[in-house]
Amino acid sequence: MGNRSEDKRVAILASGGDSPGMNAAIRAFVRSALWENYQVFGIQNGYEGLLENEIRELSSRDMGMIINQGGTMLGTARSAEFQTPAGLQKAAANLNAAKIDALCVVGGDGSFRGLLALSEFYKGQVVGIPGTIDNDIPGTEYTIGFDTAVQTAVEAIDKLRDTALSHGRVFFVEVMGRKSGQIALSVGLASGAEDVVIPEEKTDADVVAKRLLDGRKKGKRFGIVVVAEGDDSGGAFKLAETVQQKVGFNIRVSVLGHIQRGGSPTSHDRVWGSRMGEAAVRFLKNRMTGVFTAMRGGHIIPAYLIEATVGVRAVEPEMVQLVRIMGS
Amino acid sequence: MGNRSEDKRVAILASGGDSPGMNAAIRAFVRSALWENYQVFGIQNGYEGLLENEIRELSSRDMGMIINQGGTMLGTARSAEFQTPAGLQKAAANLNAAKIDALCVVGGDGSFRGLLALSEFYKGQVVGIPGTIDNDIPGTEYTIGFDTAVQTAVEAIDKLRDTALSHGRVFFVEVMGRKSGQIALSVGLASGAEDVVIPEEKTDADVVAKRLLDGRKKGKRFGIVVVAEGDDSGGAFKLAETVQQKVGFNIRVSVLGHIQRGGSPTSHDRVWGSRMGEAAVRFLKNRMTGVFTAMRGGHIIPAYLIEATVGVRAVEPEMVQLVRIMGS
Amino acid sequence: MGNRSEDKRVAILASGGDSPGMNAAIRAFVRSALWENYQVFGIQNGYEGLLENEIRELSSRDMGMIINQGGTMLGTARSAEFQTPAGLQKAAANLNAAKIDALCVVGGDGSFRGLLALSEFYKGQVVGIPGTIDNDIPGTEYTIGFDTAVQTAVEAIDKLRDTALSHGRVFFVEVMGRKSGQIALSVGLASGAEDVVIPEEKTDADVVAKRLLDGRKKGKRFGIVVVAEGDDSGGAFKLAETVQQKVGFNIRVSVLGHIQRGGSPTSHDRVWGSRMGEAAVRFLKNRMTGVFTAMRGGHIIPAYLIEATVGVRAVEPEMVQLVRIMGS
Amino acid sequence: MGNRSEDKRVAILASGGDSPGMNAAIRAFVRSALWENYQVFGIQNGYEGLLENEIRELSSRDMGMIINQGGTMLGTARSAEFQTPAGLQKAAANLNAAKIDALCVVGGDGSFRGLLALSEFYKGQVVGIPGTIDNDIPGTEYTIGFDTAVQTAVEAIDKLRDTALSHGRVFFVEVMGRKSGQIALSVGLASGAEDVVIPEEKTDADVVAKRLLDGRKKGKRFGIVVVAEGDDSGGAFKLAETVQQKVGFNIRVSVLGHIQRGGSPTSHDRVWGSRMGEAAVRFLKNRMTGVFTAMRGGHIIPAYLIEATVGVRAVEPEMVQLVRIMGS
Repeated sequence: MGNRSEDKRVAILASGGDSPGMNAAIRAFVRSALWENYQVFGIQNGYEGLLENEIRELSSRDMGMIINQGGTMLGTARSAEFQTPAGLQKAAANLNAAKIDALCVVGGDGSFRGLLALSEFYKGQVVGIPGTIDNDIPGTEYTIGFDTAVQTAVEAIDKLRDTALSHGRVFFVEVMGRKSGQIALSVGLASGAEDVVIPEEKTDADVVAKRLLDGRKKGKRFGIVVVAEGDDSGGAFKLAETVQQKVGFNIRVSVLGHIQRGGSPTSHDRVWGSRMGEAAVRFLKNRMTGVFTAMRGGHIIPAYLIEATVGVRAVEPEMVQLVRIMGS
Repeated sequence: MGNRSEDKRVAILASGGDSPGMNAAIRAFVRSALWENYQVFGIQNGYEGLLENEIRELSSRDMGMIINQGGTMLGTARSAEFQTPAGLQKAAANLNAAKIDALCVVGGDGSFRGLLALSEFYKGQVVGIPGTIDNDIPGTEYTIGFDTAVQTAVEAIDKLRDTALSHGRVFFVEVMGRKSGQIALSVGLASGAEDVVIPEEKTDADVVAKRLLDGRKKGKRFGIVVVAEGDDSGGAFKLAETVQQKVGFNIRVSVLGHIQRGGSPTSHDRVWGSRMGEAAVRFLKNRMTGVFTAMRGGHIIPAYLIEATVGVRAVEPEMVQLVRIMGS
Repeated sequence: MGNRSEDKRVAILASGGDSPGMNAAIRAFVRSALWENYQVFGIQNGYEGLLENEIRELSSRDMGMIINQGGTMLGTARSAEFQTPAGLQKAAANLNAAKIDALCVVGGDGSFRGLLALSEFYKGQVVGIPGTIDNDIPGTEYTIGFDTAVQTAVEAIDKLRDTALSHGRVFFVEVMGRKSGQIALSVGLASGAEDVVIPEEKTDADVVAKRLLDGRKKGKRFGIVVVAEGDDSGGAFKLAETVQQKVGFNIRVSVLGHIQRGGSPTSHDRVWGSRMGEAAVRFLKNRMTGVFTAMRGGHIIPAYLIEATVGVRAVEPEMVQLVRIMGS
Repeated sequence: MGNRSEDKRVAILASGGDSPGMNAAIRAFVRSALWENYQVFGIQNGYEGLLENEIRELSSRDMGMIINQGGTMLGTARSAEFQTPAGLQKAAANLNAAKIDALCVVGGDGSFRGLLALSEFYKGQVVGIPGTIDNDIPGTEYTIGFDTAVQTAVEAIDKLRDTALSHGRVFFVEVMGRKSGQIALSVGLASGAEDVVIPEEKTDADVVAKRLLDGRKKGKRFGIVVVAEGDDSGGAFKLAETVQQKVGFNIRVSVLGHIQRGGSPTSHDRVWGSRMGEAAVRFLKNRMTGVFTAMRGGHIIPAYLIEATVGVRAVEPEMVQLVRIMGS
């Protein structure tokens, strides 16, 4: 076993939307912490569960057979009460009552904001692990779950392409991404889409229509356009309706929806979930607080939580350009 | 090679909605026909292509690398013109001009109706292969594509269940089936759904709500209800809205849509697609006409096309009962 | 709930090799039995667990989240002791001590033979559910797990074909089937294999070589030959070595092995596992004993266990012929 | 379209073992080059095809429907003749005769060595794209195909775990990696393996045995050990035989083999294959030569081919440590 210099009691919870690979992160956090001889606790159902004192000790055995499961074995929830000063105080009190020395939260930017707010009342160490399918958190190149969500969407579009090809049809496929086009861009590139529309760009139905008509002229009998749900056009159904009138042929719509959140995590999410879970323990051991496991330049480093809470990570203009060239 | 008693020219087309396994059927038809020393032709884009004379000779090599592809390599389309007497006459004339002795059509009940209508003008042999994901054609226990469509929906719900479980949510999942609950029932049983609503039964939102509330009482934190798109409730969105008000908690909706039509066919659809393709050639060799490859008692037999065109195959009451018991 | 005319205590165990869909059968057995108001018990680790009294009551909740899991939640094992008269007596005594009125065994022909032997000492009702990937049990058209095993092998060969095509290579792929070519034939047909060799036929390396050379002449740059592990040639490695010398080019070998036993069951295995589990309870309710849930003509009927224990189910000659024509 | 400052004729070939995502790279190279108004040529079957003048012009349409296909649409081969001075001279002469201004090679370190050798005779620009499942090329953090190979192996082990758990068995699983443990480490981490043995470390059967026995003591009924094919123990079969005698229980072996090379590429390999294909064109446009598209710090930069040809990229000690902690 490892260097057991300290006797720590650490807890972990998942918050916000679930994302595949959270279990790998939890498992790695728990086993790495046990390796350091810490006592480890799991808090069920996110901040809500923290308010209700749903805290239980976790053993290495509890982590068996979860790495390949989607979702999160700790459950997750959104809590309105937690966001009030009274809620934060109660949460801190519960952590103190359970003698928790450090809290790790797996979640998105909202969950990190909650953790920062909590840290004004709770004086233990706090660390974050970025877990959200959106990959839109500033300060980190990767958030756990993104790869699985993209893969799921790409596999769905691979199926749609069969039927699009057989019938000579155009499909508008809506993927997740309320504020960010990260998922849409990767999905569009990987699925060989004709076009991608994202919240970061003003969408012009005339331009979309022209691209489809140009494709027809070149002999393309079918096509896929990937639409981020948060696109300013109002989503796939609305955009399809407008474009349909301009191009003069039927457009089918498919909204992939919640299947993108689930499913057995890809090996990529399992590996990076594990690495981030381990890094979180390392940060705690090194007496850090107020940081999260950020990927930068392919490495995991501690970055300040506050960095993750300002704005949305920008898309790379090169990706946008590449998708367009590939689909032309 | 086989017994080459005759010199026949046979053609094949796919019609109606595409379904996975059509390629296996086409491949088996073509290779079995070549084995009999027939000349084989493919008609592109269904009856529409027949009207436009999109007929080309097919070789064994053309059938390479298609058995694992979804959709249909011949393309498919719906044609309004074909359904007129003039259209049928033109179609017959095109077949005669190309000296086609026999025509095989892969498709659903609508396609079979078209084939029967055509056979009043076209005097060659006609055979059908039931290819539709709906499995709702009277007179056959199986139609090619059903297994893949069910499998695709079940895999999607396996993913949804991860997120349903993590968040303690109920999902209403809409699957294909405009007139028939066959897909919904198999999907519901295989995915461990709490309930299934189908066009064959009058749907009572109060009953659906009660089942969900009963589940909550027993401690079920989440649930899946499978809704056939043709259910009299008006589909998953409408039903969810109504039920939501009765149960007092949020219900998420997922419409699986066109992904159910595509995707690499399951081994089951490849095997039975192949067997039906081969059987169709055998029927032609035996000088049959006006028949289709029907599965009865697990065997493929020739059944009259007319049988397939009356009504919708009934669901088994035992299946309905079983799904309900399993989900309770 | 159902008609609760009786107060029965029923138990279920899985025996022999595990196969995907066993969990669906167990779940359906348990929930159907509970519906009948029976008390239900699970015996862990097959007959071995029965000897060790690993019996526990099962509730409906225990059956949650298992329908999509491969393997069996009850565990399985092979036991030498059980097969002795002393072992059978002890097993019967344990069932009597636990006041078990009826025992259901999910497994293959060996497990059924064990159940028949046990029934000479144990006077409760006994029923079997055919669960083995081999689909080689006489008296039933289907055994739970076959579809998943075939699907897994076909997906693996779909991957091999990519690399076979890129490199212009021939692969010999060994699939499961010690006494039977059922898996090999379905896999061969569904994966578009050039040839299949099975235990039911004498394998002639010269014929296999000739088919490959004929394919080369016709321009086939690559090929797949499916080899049943129990083929008289001695398996894929031996056969490849012999054939290699005759054809004069390299042959790669892939032994798929145990992955064929695992994996999330296909919807087909989940549906039929569920139906057989329910049927087993129905048989018990109807006071039957010494029977198993056999599929005949697409329906599940009670067949005598003894039928399942004599010989190996024959392959259909039409399947053999069809695979050869398709691969030519 | 892009800036068309030049009139270039560029060619691309794939060499060495095929790997999933090569098609994405080829597609992106071709379409990006066409965007620059270059004429683009594909060379079939690697350096061998170059010697045989298998050169043909490629259009944007030729790149349709390949991004989701495994293997490489250009074919690949290994050539002994090419490695001789005469072979290199002939290859250069063929490129010159076809007036090819620049050659792009997708492949591993051996292919890059070939390209460097060729560049002593051929005076056009040369660029490489790292395409090999092994991810063991010095100078780049990623090679196209690695993610898919790892994912395929992890999915296979997910299946094995079902049966391992049901039977309480230990499996030794051999994965690809002749000189490198990169695949084994990622697979081991992502599949929750109990142990991983790799060529970079001296393997001690006693240590492997002890870990398994320790696991048993803690109540682990089953286990997975991932073995890199190039491990000094001699591979999974040999190691299992030795360890079996030390632990006193049976160990099953599964050699995953060539399925790891094939299969539809993951979205990750499609995205990075596309980005590297595009980058290769950008390098050519910028008049670079003797470079390859290396990933460093998550970005694609031009690195000298010579860097890629010296030794094997080292594994991260942190990964080794992490896998061991997770499996303990």
